[in-house]
Amino acid sequence: MTKKENNYCVIMAGGIGSRFWPFSREEKPKQFLDFFGTGRSLLQMTVDRFRPIVPIENMFIVTNIAYKQIILEQIPDLQEGQILCEPARRNTAPCIAYATAHIRALCLQRAYGYTKANKGFTKDGKLTVGSEGSQLPGYLDIDWTKPEMQANIVVAASDHLILEEEKFRETIVKAFDFVSEHKAICTLGMQPTRPETGYGYIQFLKSTKDECAMYEGIYPVKTFTEKPNLEMAKVFLQSGDFLWNSGIFVWNLQTISEAFRYLLPEVADRFREGELLMGTQEEENFIEQIFPKCPNISIDYGIMEKADNVFVIPSSFGWSDLGTWGSLYELSAKDANSNVSLHSEAHFYEAKGNIVVLEKGKKAIIQGVEDMIIAEEGGKLLVCKKSEEQRIKQFVSEL
Amino acid sequence: MTKKENNYCVIMAGGIGSRFWPFSREEKPKQFLDFFGTGRSLLQMTVDRFRPIVPIENMFIVTNIAYKQIILEQIPDLQEGQILCEPARRNTAPCIAYATAHIRALCLQRAYGYTKANKGFTKDGKLTVGSEGSQLPGYLDIDWTKPEMQANIVVAASDHLILEEEKFRETIVKAFDFVSEHKAICTLGMQPTRPETGYGYIQFLKSTKDECAMYEGIYPVKTFTEKPNLEMAKVFLQSGDFLWNSGIFVWNLQTISEAFRYLLPEVADRFREGELLMGTQEEENFIEQIFPKCPNISIDYGIMEKADNVFVIPSSFGWSDLGTWGSLYELSAKDANSNVSLHSEAHFYEAKGNIVVLEKGKKAIIQGVEDMIIAEEGGKLLVCKKSEEQRIKQFVSEL
Repeated sequence: MTKKENNYCVIMAGGIGSRFWPFSREEKPKQFLDFFGTGRSLLQMTVDRFRPIVPIENMFIVTNIAYKQIILEQIPDLQEGQILCEPARRNTAPCIAYATAHIRALCLQRAYGYTKANKGFTKDGKLTVGSEGSQLPGYLDIDWTKPEMQANIVVAASDHLILEEEKFRETIVKAFDFVSEHKAICTLGMQPTRPETGYGYIQFLKSTKDECAMYEGIYPVKTFTEKPNLEMAKVFLQSGDFLWNSGIFVWNLQTISEAFRYLLPEVADRFREGELLMGTQEEENFIEQIFPKCPNISIDYGIMEKADNVFVIPSSFGWSDLGTWGSLYELSAKDANSNVSLHSEAHFYEAKGNIVVLEKGKKAIIQGVEDMIIAEEGGKLLVCKKSEEQRIKQFVSEL
Repeated sequence: MTKKENNYCVIMAGGIGSRFWPFSREEKPKQFLDFFGTGRSLLQMTVDRFRPIVPIENMFIVTNIAYKQIILEQIPDLQEGQILCEPARRNTAPCIAYATAHIRALCLQRAYGYTKANKGFTKDGKLTVGSEGSQLPGYLDIDWTKPEMQANIVVAASDHLILEEEKFRETIVKAFDFVSEHKAICTLGMQPTRPETGYGYIQFLKSTKDECAMYEGIYPVKTFTEKPNLEMAKVFLQSGDFLWNSGIFVWNLQTISEAFRYLLPEVADRFREGELLMGTQEEENFIEQIFPKCPNISIDYGIMEKADNVFVIPSSFGWSDLGTWGSLYELSAKDANSNVSLHSEAHFYEAKGNIVVLEKGKKAIIQGVEDMIIAEEGGKLLVCKKSEEQRIKQFVSEL
């Protein structure tokens, strides 16, 4: 059982949420919205979900500078330094590399007494730390057995829905235990319940590798696949060997550091340049310099698909990435004609299969439409077939 | 040519406009709305339309007490006494009878010096007026030749659209001239441009009666007909003998007084009871007593269909009763796919034949719908097939 103080989480909150326009807009994307009218935003629910297993000071939120203020308002017990701002949108690999570098600096500070006041280089190029003879090791000289260097990290999106939170935490704790003992990259795969074409899939091997022999329910990953067409999704569902890729990853600081170093050096090298600046006042300036130079690449493509030590925990705790109106529709309570009405009071006549999301307290009369998205927020109205929702981004860009 | 000071108008503004929900609502029905974003409400446009031919002090607006304040705000040069409040909804005949009684009292005051201070009865039941020997005549003893008793009255709705206002006024002036010289009930019939099933029709005789021999373009009415079905409406359109019933009437005070007396005594008698109270502080109280006792009856059914002195002026000045979303749709500018967007910016994709009316400044993306009404106002949204708009009233009552 890992110690809570060694657990970290990285919450990715940089999405601009254009797919849920107009309910979610660039000024206030969906992670900051009270999506289900519960009084808590998706981000707040995400942070709260981790509180019992990760100390608040070990939580980091990676986002755009534009959202820093709203995050500080929504999570008031977060320090400003725990919000890591991306100066450009570069997909998940650079985002996670940044958070990893930041956590690494923090662990080094804790392990080696390294602070912004006493950093320095020795003549032979090794990093030294001055005042009381403490010494910051070079990249390969870190003593990973030091207790402060034991950092188990979970990476998750800020805008997903998880219904069974206790089951979720049990799964994460199991993964923490696993990655603290093995150099494994662990991912959570969701048991599919329908032939969803909006998700990537993970194929896993039911025979176990040595590493997870003693861990029931943890399996080696065979392949990651892109979003399938419907026919393929049906085959995936029937085979029983495929899980939905949730984008929730668990690993140890050392493991992910090495994975970046060996599998994605074009990203890792950027961050090495300023290793000593991380956690200091110069971090922001440094990130502004190197981050935009990182390639635009996803963690799935850059690490997961290439690594040979990737494992998956088949899970089911009522997860949705809330990535589409369709997924929100699927999740929501429906009336006798399969209509969904969120936040507001909608009356339906000769209408079925619609999802209506209006500003709180609004009323609607909906007659004679089928399988439509009808959403209104902040003076913007959307009426669109559910089957055409992938075009909403384009529509909005034309507005 | 009649004198402007002898011209009066009665504007009916009591409608609750539930058919245009949610754009028009009981708190603020359509006559008070800036329907086309011109900066003037339909009522203001109606009053302005009459200003060149009717003195403002001869204009009367019949409405519900709930709308008195908004009318005073919208027409600031109107005196409070020019707003006649109906204590109950009793269709157009009692409404017009009330306005007629009020104008009659006003003319009597002007002709006979009758004021609230000096009213009284003589012993033989004749009405007398005291202070300076002036005398209010009994019902049949009015000297209609007195100049002050020459009142030519146009009755019109407050919520119709008229595009060619100068042409409209020319027609009204022609009707004023006609009714000032003849005991004629004159109505304006619109040249039909389509087989509309939402309007009543007027069949007219192309041979002229004596009364209108010298008035080119004024014809005796043969029949009034109810709203036809589509087949019948097509026959009407082809025959050339049918006009749309605009609900715009022109008559002389004496003529309409006598018509009520002989054709609708159950209404006329109610108002006779308090003849002396009209135009005094007691008018309001009297109306509250007798108005609810009046039968619920339309002027068409109660007077027009029964009278033998009804004439029609075939007219075309771009008129619409704006009674339906369909008529608003017909009137409005359309894009290449026959979509109408009012007040707001709507972007259409695979959408045709829709009418979108949102609050000013709002934006919308509309995809994949056809022939729909999409309207939003004050936190209420309507999505409804154009063909089902007659059910909107019912939907709203269920809300």
